[in-house]
Amino acid sequence: MKTTKGRVTIPTDRDVIPETLEILRRWGADAVRDCDGTDFPEELKTVDAKVYATYYTTRKDNAWAQANPDEVQQCYIMTGFYTAAGEEPLAIPLMQGVSRELMAVNDRDDIRRWWEVMDRTAARPLEPDAWRYDGAKGCVVIERPEPFHDYTVSFLAYLIWDPVHMYNAVTNGWKDFEHQITFDVRQPKTHAYSLERLRRFIREHPYVDVIRYTTFFHQFTLVFDELRREKYVDWYGYSASVSPYILERFEREAGYPFRPEYIIDQGYYNNQYRVPTKEYKDFLAFQRREVAALAKELVDITHEMGREAMMFLGDHWIGTEPYMEEFASIGLDAVVGSVGNGSTLRLISDIPGVKYTEGRFLPYFFPDTFHPGGDPVREAKENWLTARRAILRKPVDRIGYGGYLKLACQFPEFLDYVEQVCSEFRELYDNIQGRKPWCVRRVAVLNCWGRARSWGCHMVHHALYQKQNYSYAGVIEALSGAPYDVRFLSFDEILAGPDALHGVDVLLNIGDGDTAHTGGAVWEDPRVSSTVRQFVWNGGGFIGVGEPSGHQYQGRYFQLAGVLGVEKETGFTLNYDKYNWEEHPEHFILADAGGGVDFGEGKKSIYALPGTTVLVQRDREVQLAVHEFGGGRAVYLSGLPYSFANSRLLHRAVLWSSHGEKELERWFSSNISTELHAYPDSGRYCVVNNTYEPQQTTVFADGGSFQLTLEAGEIRWYTQKTAAE
Amino acid sequence: MKTTKGRVTIPTDRDVIPETLEILRRWGADAVRDCDGTDFPEELKTVDAKVYATYYTTRKDNAWAQANPDEVQQCYIMTGFYTAAGEEPLAIPLMQGVSRELMAVNDRDDIRRWWEVMDRTAARPLEPDAWRYDGAKGCVVIERPEPFHDYTVSFLAYLIWDPVHMYNAVTNGWKDFEHQITFDVRQPKTHAYSLERLRRFIREHPYVDVIRYTTFFHQFTLVFDELRREKYVDWYGYSASVSPYILERFEREAGYPFRPEYIIDQGYYNNQYRVPTKEYKDFLAFQRREVAALAKELVDITHEMGREAMMFLGDHWIGTEPYMEEFASIGLDAVVGSVGNGSTLRLISDIPGVKYTEGRFLPYFFPDTFHPGGDPVREAKENWLTARRAILRKPVDRIGYGGYLKLACQFPEFLDYVEQVCSEFRELYDNIQGRKPWCVRRVAVLNCWGRARSWGCHMVHHALYQKQNYSYAGVIEALSGAPYDVRFLSFDEILAGPDALHGVDVLLNIGDGDTAHTGGAVWEDPRVSSTVRQFVWNGGGFIGVGEPSGHQYQGRYFQLAGVLGVEKETGFTLNYDKYNWEEHPEHFILADAGGGVDFGEGKKSIYALPGTTVLVQRDREVQLAVHEFGGGRAVYLSGLPYSFANSRLLHRAVLWSSHGEKELERWFSSNISTELHAYPDSGRYCVVNNTYEPQQTTVFADGGSFQLTLEAGEIRWYTQKTAAE
Repeated sequence: MKTTKGRVTIPTDRDVIPETLEILRRWGADAVRDCDGTDFPEELKTVDAKVYATYYTTRKDNAWAQANPDEVQQCYIMTGFYTAAGEEPLAIPLMQGVSRELMAVNDRDDIRRWWEVMDRTAARPLEPDAWRYDGAKGCVVIERPEPFHDYTVSFLAYLIWDPVHMYNAVTNGWKDFEHQITFDVRQPKTHAYSLERLRRFIREHPYVDVIRYTTFFHQFTLVFDELRREKYVDWYGYSASVSPYILERFEREAGYPFRPEYIIDQGYYNNQYRVPTKEYKDFLAFQRREVAALAKELVDITHEMGREAMMFLGDHWIGTEPYMEEFASIGLDAVVGSVGNGSTLRLISDIPGVKYTEGRFLPYFFPDTFHPGGDPVREAKENWLTARRAILRKPVDRIGYGGYLKLACQFPEFLDYVEQVCSEFRELYDNIQGRKPWCVRRVAVLNCWGRARSWGCHMVHHALYQKQNYSYAGVIEALSGAPYDVRFLSFDEILAGPDALHGVDVLLNIGDGDTAHTGGAVWEDPRVSSTVRQFVWNGGGFIGVGEPSGHQYQGRYFQLAGVLGVEKETGFTLNYDKYNWEEHPEHFILADAGGGVDFGEGKKSIYALPGTTVLVQRDREVQLAVHEFGGGRAVYLSGLPYSFANSRLLHRAVLWSSHGEKELERWFSSNISTELHAYPDSGRYCVVNNTYEPQQTTVFADGGSFQLTLEAGEIRWYTQKTAAE
Repeated sequence: MKTTKGRVTIPTDRDVIPETLEILRRWGADAVRDCDGTDFPEELKTVDAKVYATYYTTRKDNAWAQANPDEVQQCYIMTGFYTAAGEEPLAIPLMQGVSRELMAVNDRDDIRRWWEVMDRTAARPLEPDAWRYDGAKGCVVIERPEPFHDYTVSFLAYLIWDPVHMYNAVTNGWKDFEHQITFDVRQPKTHAYSLERLRRFIREHPYVDVIRYTTFFHQFTLVFDELRREKYVDWYGYSASVSPYILERFEREAGYPFRPEYIIDQGYYNNQYRVPTKEYKDFLAFQRREVAALAKELVDITHEMGREAMMFLGDHWIGTEPYMEEFASIGLDAVVGSVGNGSTLRLISDIPGVKYTEGRFLPYFFPDTFHPGGDPVREAKENWLTARRAILRKPVDRIGYGGYLKLACQFPEFLDYVEQVCSEFRELYDNIQGRKPWCVRRVAVLNCWGRARSWGCHMVHHALYQKQNYSYAGVIEALSGAPYDVRFLSFDEILAGPDALHGVDVLLNIGDGDTAHTGGAVWEDPRVSSTVRQFVWNGGGFIGVGEPSGHQYQGRYFQLAGVLGVEKETGFTLNYDKYNWEEHPEHFILADAGGGVDFGEGKKSIYALPGTTVLVQRDREVQLAVHEFGGGRAVYLSGLPYSFANSRLLHRAVLWSSHGEKELERWFSSNISTELHAYPDSGRYCVVNNTYEPQQTTVFADGGSFQLTLEAGEIRWYTQKTAAE
């Protein structure tokens, strides 16, 4: 029997009460929520649906923030580079390029201790008495700089306007409102106050079933400039999780003195492309423990007062780190997060340690999409089809939408389409029954971050495109809907012991050289390189994308050149003649590639070593090559943006590298625009059309095969006759 | 009166006596020479021309070589990388991939001292007792390797077939001849023998006027594989200038123990892209002194016996280093070298310390060009027009040809064309009168090599194309015919004192990051970066091409990002929003660019910092940008292969960067296919058509301008009315 209600959350507001009731019915929604800039209407408090209340732990209480300016949240900021044009004093303006609505310099705390003036040319911090702060001019002045050295200043600033509040206000053109100040719940007065504030909120909202924390304590790094344009964003950024109070605690725990440079990181702010330092890893671990402990206090109160605790994986999520062990200790009931594609779906649905997960789908009901001439249906379709293949690997338990419902109601076709999505979601959820899908291989993505950045590696600002990484993020996106057991493995795990690669069929290393995604100087540790070599030699598969193991050292740029059979020309090997350019396009991996492969940005200057089989080279630059190393096999790809064709190419590479050519046509749909997912434990399988045109395909299932035509976007469910294994 | 004879050298052979006489007359040649594989005919010994005799200092005496096998020239070779697949003994075959006709392992000298077995995974040499040499199998065996470490062996090999002799023999398909063995004139027995051998040769060749040394003692690195294919070539390579005898002397002079790794350099053999180590620079300096001293002994004998001494800049030229101070002490009369383009012309013509220089033009009279269906005229035209613009800046004193004259005689049009070239060369030489041409700017190319690689920076094997460097070598080629005073400046000179940049108008840094051409870690030295910043701030011009100052350090990839106004996205700054993409094509630099600029390979991921003026970006990757820094100006170019249009673009960049926009139309020809060269000291100037079609142009000279039509390839000479200054 088809489920017609449930698993769907919708937003509401005071101006859309009848519409809310109508949409609840049509979409089969069983939960309603408020949003930033909306209010939950009195009339819906008794509606037959769970009520979520967005709870802003760190903002929406300016009275408190203004009364306790010393406990306003802080952020480390580095100025730009300033050159001393001679021996005259050099004045460095701290807030140049940073919105003064957003931040204010913290000169309340001891600036000699918490600020750092760096001679970047000499890689040296200045002694505190070598500079002074001119508060009136907002400048640090270096009285006697070294001529023509470059200097930067690292300083603490208060978040005097919550960055997400600012973003929402600017995006929606809000007028006549107060800038919400971010306060730091970690600090003692605000900590005590926040517990009481939460109790009061829950008491005052008896109709609320779910406290939707948005979020806990620290905003991911988000800085705007004087023109209110985004200046810097890092969805994984920890720069705004600091204060002298916290950093002194860190010092005590770490046992060594804190330096601003640990957070500033030369102005790179430890973004995920940076190979993390020991100090930064220490800091992350400290933050995880502290945030989990404090979040638990709020969650415990929530439970004690009879409500559910749901966390929004976004905004002030920093420190919770859902894939790290501290997370489960928080005791959350649920996590909800925004779904931009398959990777971000899995980023939510794979989270362990919660009762359920919810995906907030796009488009958000904001006027940037819902305006006359806008096409929200197109966005919704893209979003759903992109996410669905990931849902079929590991479903979220609920889906939902956010924003102004009033805007969505102006687009009837959008309402119709989402109604269909909700119904389809319930159907597939019923079919999967929470069981693990059949996986043909166990693959592991190897980088410096491991599970801490599960599904989020190569993510800068959630699912937003970056020219420099879509050719790598595409691999993660392909994996999100592929029939593998996917792990994210760190180099630290390899260093921790010889069993790190146990149970892995195919290892992937994806990204540019000398970044955390490929490892950089990590490869200078013989334990890392020899472990990976041994893994492949003994039969393992290896897929390197971009500049895998790329780090100049001991005669190689690719530290795994011997495994991969390719190397990068950096100029150092121009003197060597290169003869291996002949293409061998008749290869298992290319069998579905048809008119050529889109390598995205690709890579320049890659050449094949003797004995390597070049599958694709363009203008004498290898894009795809395969190489046998002992009993194992390696595949080199210059890049792989997500597409149906590339998803299939990756699948063939995974199978080939693990000697699985003969396993392709098991629980498999031949047309690249379609996919098959099997669920041995529930005895079901489905074939899904990932396009909005009809598709014909040959389905391989139950040990046989049959022809199938699928309608646009169709998902067809079957009962297995034989167990998938 | 037009000079109709002189300044031309032709090859001859026993089978072309009448043809030699005919060509001597037609080309106005005044010198004849023999070549490798030819013999000087008895009948021409009294000809009215200077006679050059090619003299092979290091070969063509197998009796000596075979009698003194311990003094055969040696070469350091590194094997490929071999992985230990477990703890079993690892056997590394030394000669895998190397022609056994070319080399033989030297196990005569103490292999424990002169060989090195490297654990490349651990970056560690093995103790000599951790390996043994199995001579029968030609393998080094490591009895107990570290599992899955990579190993290489560095060893000495004898050059049992002279590499150039082998090349000539293979290229020409020689049959029935003896492989000439290279002997090492530096070693004591051969040293003494070689002086006597030279005396004997001169005595036995009384008709010879010029001893054309081909060359002195050490072949540039040139290795062939088992299939007689070129495996490794470095025209600047010193790997074949070693022997225990020499290295022990080096140790005594350097005062520290020699290690094979100093020469092997991880298998990169210290090619010119490598930032040279202190030890390698010590070794080069040692070799320069020793080679100069020994070469002087030969030259002194030559003079003592009444002959001229000419050195061929090629083959065994290693150690002579014509741009370093030791060179003049050799006392050579002349240098002759092969001319592949403008850069290689200047490489010869700029050599200080000799009485005259000679360019050997292409094509060489070998069957690879002179065969039925071949087009030697096309090659000759390209060669001449490419070289002529460089000749007009700094002429060689003579031109010449090499190879089998018999082959050339089969192409009458070729004979006609070269006749015209010889005449034109004499005309321009007469006009220039050895005077310095007018230079609108003083430019310096800054890299790790400085004058040691004058005109040869970015050169792998003479003028041969490399995909990875033609976009950089193109700048050097443009400079070779441009109206500048060009210097090649090393970072060491900047480190040596503050006056290094004195007299420089525009500084260039050209190449990929972390190579010797851009400097790599040199930029970590504050003296380097602050000196260059100061130079630009105080009004200097800076042109960076490719990845100028590229080296990851202290928050920048381009260490001169602040000067250049551009930076490379390495992943570390993906989090920063980038807004500066608007193109400003109406710029002085682009005024002649018309339909767009060819940046060659260009560069990916370059972005402009705020305040920089982007001239060209493609798909959000900056290719050309300009930036003011204090009183100076910087230009960024992603690449600049040589073409007329790019030569003009570089010229405009040079002028713009040094505030010289108004100086463009002085002694200038507007059409990019033409150039003007002025000679204030001789009161002449010329306008030259660099194409083989007629060209119209506006000529700016003598403070005025006039229209001019030039015939195909024409060079038109004028007398100045006003002095060029």
